[in-house]
Amino acid sequence: MQATYQQALQTMGKIADLSAAMAIMGWDQETFMPAGAAQARGEHLAGLSAMAHNAMTNDSAVALVSELRSELDNLNATERGIAECFIRDHEQDLKLPESHVSNLARATTAAQEAWKKARSQSDFSLFAPALQKLVDLKKAEAEMRGYDENPYDALIDLYEPGMKSSLVGPIFERLQPKLTEIIKSVGEIAVPEKSVFDGMYAKDAQLNFGRSIVEQMGFNFTNGRIDVSTHPFCTNFAPTDVRLTTRVDEDDIRMCMFSLIHEAGHGMYEQGIPEAYFRTSAAGGTSMGIHESQSLFWEDIVARSQAFWNYALPKFKQAFPEAPEALNPVSAFKAVNTVDPGLIRIEADEVTYHLHIILRYEIENALINGEIDVADIPSVWNEKMQQYLGITPPDDARGCLQDIHWSFAGFGYFPSYSLGKLYAAMFRESLYKAMPNADELIEQGNFAPILAWLNANIHVYGRTKNSEEIAQKVCGHGLSEQPFLKYVGEKLEIVYQSK
Amino acid sequence: MQATYQQALQTMGKIADLSAAMAIMGWDQETFMPAGAAQARGEHLAGLSAMAHNAMTNDSAVALVSELRSELDNLNATERGIAECFIRDHEQDLKLPESHVSNLARATTAAQEAWKKARSQSDFSLFAPALQKLVDLKKAEAEMRGYDENPYDALIDLYEPGMKSSLVGPIFERLQPKLTEIIKSVGEIAVPEKSVFDGMYAKDAQLNFGRSIVEQMGFNFTNGRIDVSTHPFCTNFAPTDVRLTTRVDEDDIRMCMFSLIHEAGHGMYEQGIPEAYFRTSAAGGTSMGIHESQSLFWEDIVARSQAFWNYALPKFKQAFPEAPEALNPVSAFKAVNTVDPGLIRIEADEVTYHLHIILRYEIENALINGEIDVADIPSVWNEKMQQYLGITPPDDARGCLQDIHWSFAGFGYFPSYSLGKLYAAMFRESLYKAMPNADELIEQGNFAPILAWLNANIHVYGRTKNSEEIAQKVCGHGLSEQPFLKYVGEKLEIVYQSK
Repeated sequence: MQATYQQALQTMGKIADLSAAMAIMGWDQETFMPAGAAQARGEHLAGLSAMAHNAMTNDSAVALVSELRSELDNLNATERGIAECFIRDHEQDLKLPESHVSNLARATTAAQEAWKKARSQSDFSLFAPALQKLVDLKKAEAEMRGYDENPYDALIDLYEPGMKSSLVGPIFERLQPKLTEIIKSVGEIAVPEKSVFDGMYAKDAQLNFGRSIVEQMGFNFTNGRIDVSTHPFCTNFAPTDVRLTTRVDEDDIRMCMFSLIHEAGHGMYEQGIPEAYFRTSAAGGTSMGIHESQSLFWEDIVARSQAFWNYALPKFKQAFPEAPEALNPVSAFKAVNTVDPGLIRIEADEVTYHLHIILRYEIENALINGEIDVADIPSVWNEKMQQYLGITPPDDARGCLQDIHWSFAGFGYFPSYSLGKLYAAMFRESLYKAMPNADELIEQGNFAPILAWLNANIHVYGRTKNSEEIAQKVCGHGLSEQPFLKYVGEKLEIVYQSK
Repeated sequence: MQATYQQALQTMGKIADLSAAMAIMGWDQETFMPAGAAQARGEHLAGLSAMAHNAMTNDSAVALVSELRSELDNLNATERGIAECFIRDHEQDLKLPESHVSNLARATTAAQEAWKKARSQSDFSLFAPALQKLVDLKKAEAEMRGYDENPYDALIDLYEPGMKSSLVGPIFERLQPKLTEIIKSVGEIAVPEKSVFDGMYAKDAQLNFGRSIVEQMGFNFTNGRIDVSTHPFCTNFAPTDVRLTTRVDEDDIRMCMFSLIHEAGHGMYEQGIPEAYFRTSAAGGTSMGIHESQSLFWEDIVARSQAFWNYALPKFKQAFPEAPEALNPVSAFKAVNTVDPGLIRIEADEVTYHLHIILRYEIENALINGEIDVADIPSVWNEKMQQYLGITPPDDARGCLQDIHWSFAGFGYFPSYSLGKLYAAMFRESLYKAMPNADELIEQGNFAPILAWLNANIHVYGRTKNSEEIAQKVCGHGLSEQPFLKYVGEKLEIVYQSK
């Protein structure tokens, strides 16, 4: 039986090598690739993707998985966890014909170029035909993958295995009016500290400061690096090779700082995956929701706390001697927690952020169910922005063209951002129970025990447990919006204490 | 029969995709990869390399090639050229077991890290064990590949298909004493202009100037880019994605400028390969010798000519207002053509350069034939340096550790640098016959007709003709040292005219 498992490891290794190749090509595409190379890159990615698909689904893989399935009981726990991930991936891949996989790869490469152009010219019509193609391909894919009630579930499952719109939908329905209500109730209260970070900050100084913060948090630069791209992201080719990107706005220092902390949260998750899972199907984070719970844990729970600003503000003032006088730990804390409905998702505060996601979730759900057309997106987007956040985008670049996700056919991805926030608040409750002095540690810049707790309770599983299984282990219950509402309510009471 | 050819194209596409993946991983390894990722990168490269090898040599490839061989006469000229490259690669790959390929990939990754460390500490013993492993693997490989007289020929053939030590050896034997004689004869003549470039030049300004020159020469930045690495190189993932790297020494501007022109010469060759060859076995330059003939054509023939400095010097002075007064077109021309025996190959002038190569050729030949041991390299290196160039390296970093080539097991690669110089001088003769006003064009910065001539006479073939076939087509004769000796003799007469 060990022979079967060893053979499965060989196949997993091959797929991991191809995935690493695609990941590095994807990273390069967003950071350094010359513009003229887009078509060739698309051809290469389509070819590699077809090879990975073939390795996972060819006749010998089918035979191998059937043998492996019958021998699961003879494996130890680690091996079994790895084998089960492999079998699950195999079953998912088997549902898609190779032609679909390479069509999708080719179509997303074209769509990404179209999206970049459309975004820079703020003209949705330049993106619409490429997007329509992706919607059609993903609707077809949902049918191939299968679902119980809602075809959109088949796509959510790609990012959040086991998650369904019947669980997340009602939570979003309860959240939306409560959050819109919060916006209204605090809308008329001025937070004088709100603009205390305003000013021009030099690009290199911003990158250096962000780098020093995430290094202190525990991101390992021997096994990682930072580059600049249009849309910040994190990718990895191994736990020893984790790449963050960020964007620098010289007139908004929060963009670079918080996006780096966010991406470093993803990165520390990947750096924390056990070595035993390298080049197997169990490598990597278990779901996008849990991934976001890690990035948002560092970005929101840690870096928007009063304790953090007690630690970080003196360092900030050292890095930026030109920072305003009025900037102090308390005003910084208030500034990064002001509820401020804006147009851009990645600049949103913790409260309005969910509304950006709920809007996207509803549009995706309607698109995949054929309730709206691609052409309707700009108007539906703008109506919902007005309804949920009370503002209307003046152009598509700051509206429905702002995100990269649809250009890579990432329908089903957005919900995981909100799931991440909800899980992060749940994990926060558990951490503070296990480590009642967490605020003190943060205030001292002693992040190592917190990272070690995340390592031991979440990262350790790789892909061998799904999000709800991890939540049950860490919190004793599944997905809930209550910890988030409690956490954010308590925080806003301080920020808006004048109320 | 077209079905067979189409199937062959599919296999070639797969191999091209894997090769592109390995090339981008290789590029990243030298430019951006975090240090801790070396082992994982080695695993990925070994896996991809084994996949490419398997695709080229598995049973269906063997059957496919045998069918294709019998149907060559039914193909048109382009198809036939592509098919013949595929068959040749298949035959070469079939000689190596997959285990050898992945062992070599793993060993070279380790050796590259060892070389970097050894070089930075100038301690050959840190590199020797890894190098010994590579020598053993390549000796075994020579036996697998087969040869007529000299096992080293099997390795030269990897870089210069069809080339043999029985052809190149006698040429080197004739060249060496003639060049050592030139060094002696001009050694006592001072060239007062020799140091006229000396001074500190800021890194960014150097990169910008180099970039503007290679752009003017015709390197296409829509389809390419420049980065910085320890050792300058050129790689490509498609004719539309060509990457140059350079190194910047703030106290020697010639390093950055000439290495960029050199690498751009390689890059323009790759950018000039016909699109019809993309993702086929006929893509890319035909041999390292012809590749070097292109890089050295631009670096030496063009950029060390009086005509070029008549064009470039005013631009140079604009870019570097701090440049010495004494720098003018004539002094610049003399400065970049001074014969100046030095320790570093890539800083060498046209005359001494061959001696650096002949030394390496002789050491490699002796290593592969078991006439010397790895441990002997430093002493043999230093003795030959003294004998050929009249100087002895004070340490290994400036001696036998200076080049990256042995760390990637590139035995057989070095001779192609000298072949490149010899071919470049041969092509020069043909170009000046076809275009008697070439000097005038260069003086005007009008490089397009020259690049077009190289495109039409050399780049156009991709890998479908080997170096000697191209030489016959372009020059009417095969490899010869005469055009080089004539060209360099005439030039030195001007530089050393005081004689």
